[in-house]
Amino acid sequence: MSRWRKLGVIAGGGELPVVLAEHLAQTGEPYFVARISPMASAALDAHPGASRGLGLMGARMQDMREAGCDAVVLIGQVARPDIATLEFDDAARAMLPALLAAMPKGDDALLRAVLAEHERAGFRVIGVEEAMADVLASAGAWGAVSPTSAQLKDIAKAAKVAAMSGAFDIGQGVVVCDGLVLAVEAQEGTDGMLRRVAELPQPVRGTPDKRRGVLVKRPKPIQERRIDLPTIGVRTIETAGAAGLAGVAVEAGGALAVRRDAIVAAANAAGMFVYGFTPSEVDEA
Amino acid sequence: MSRWRKLGVIAGGGELPVVLAEHLAQTGEPYFVARISPMASAALDAHPGASRGLGLMGARMQDMREAGCDAVVLIGQVARPDIATLEFDDAARAMLPALLAAMPKGDDALLRAVLAEHERAGFRVIGVEEAMADVLASAGAWGAVSPTSAQLKDIAKAAKVAAMSGAFDIGQGVVVCDGLVLAVEAQEGTDGMLRRVAELPQPVRGTPDKRRGVLVKRPKPIQERRIDLPTIGVRTIETAGAAGLAGVAVEAGGALAVRRDAIVAAANAAGMFVYGFTPSEVDEA
Repeated sequence: MSRWRKLGVIAGGGELPVVLAEHLAQTGEPYFVARISPMASAALDAHPGASRGLGLMGARMQDMREAGCDAVVLIGQVARPDIATLEFDDAARAMLPALLAAMPKGDDALLRAVLAEHERAGFRVIGVEEAMADVLASAGAWGAVSPTSAQLKDIAKAAKVAAMSGAFDIGQGVVVCDGLVLAVEAQEGTDGMLRRVAELPQPVRGTPDKRRGVLVKRPKPIQERRIDLPTIGVRTIETAGAAGLAGVAVEAGGALAVRRDAIVAAANAAGMFVYGFTPSEVDEA
Repeated sequence: MSRWRKLGVIAGGGELPVVLAEHLAQTGEPYFVARISPMASAALDAHPGASRGLGLMGARMQDMREAGCDAVVLIGQVARPDIATLEFDDAARAMLPALLAAMPKGDDALLRAVLAEHERAGFRVIGVEEAMADVLASAGAWGAVSPTSAQLKDIAKAAKVAAMSGAFDIGQGVVVCDGLVLAVEAQEGTDGMLRRVAELPQPVRGTPDKRRGVLVKRPKPIQERRIDLPTIGVRTIETAGAAGLAGVAVEAGGALAVRRDAIVAAANAAGMFVYGFTPSEVDEA
């Protein structure tokens, strides 16, 4: 398929949209940042674009159309809104029945419905890795530390549990330590899950002095891979490190790395591994 | 099978061992409380028995043998110990290889190994409901409030997720609100899970003023049902109530109720349901 003419970056919270906008600016590709307020980072204000509330979907699409965008990418964090207090425009109100029907089915169902509305409006929807190839997780050890065979077993177990949790559209993250499942991520998010691992009784977990256990993030088997791929960044390494984990593993080709160089530097400094596993490596283990 | 002569109550933490001891004292049945220190409640000191640390398994079995116990029940909460700092006697050291081999496989595997050691030592191991029949969860609504058909759907979804989570020996509790899985219990325990539900953003959960969502506890499909059946008590209702949940549901015949009258009174006062579902009711939903 031919490449798009101009890319609309529909930006939620977090650093990933900023990294993408900087990449597009550096490579000189035409782009427009449709910032979702108030969650989009203020660092995006320096890029061509406009701000709209989450519910002003018609106005946001019109902004992008007028800017000449023919493709869009949906990235960054967006918390589930309180429908009762959100401001909608007419176009968004027309989309509401489809979105409300999807909401109770889980995050993936809701995001698929949002994506379908953008396609219905005539935009091609791409995954962020089409615009920035090296953001996609690679296979093997990324830094100086490699997982041991015992840690690879924990990775395989966590990856299996994550696949099962994802099949129910529950979440993407799991922590396993010496074979024991310490935590399963649902609506609290990865950081919330890691903070509670740090509060578990010492016998079942590691410490920064004696690291044990692994965080695995993996896309849901049912997942629409153009949106909401699991993402790790420097903060993931820091929070996992504070929880005493020995490392972080993601599915190669199925997760995004925000500022990979900084991730590797943080992991090396903490003596932690960052590892990209292949599905066959864990599903057959 | 004929009934036992004298029952050894191996008591961990929480109120359930106290309720059982009081029941046995009232009915005049012979019993002996083998208190696991330091977790066993001080209220048990008033009953015939002795205190031993978790690792003194040989001495504890000897206590019960000398007291004339031919059957034992293992009840109450026992956190995973730090093997490195636990004190063991010779008999316990002989059991260690089997227990250590089971530890990484999950809580159920570990408890099965503990149970097997008691059977090997000549004790019959019974479930608490054999000694106190009305502790087992009954089917249907327990109090004044019944779940709505929408809430029954949340119960069915949570029960399915709990079965899947239990199949991996992860945990017994799940919270679902309007179809969305808010939390899955692992090593943090039910109270820890409910506290984090209370901290989730408002749009996805209920409040004490406008209750939404349900806590489901269910035995693991693989579970040895003589030990570690899911348990609810007044505190479960209070913590679920503080998290804004509309009610609590357990598998009829597959969960224990500590002081059922007090549970029902607390639920009625909070306008919450307590419901016992049958497996066919949720697995076919």
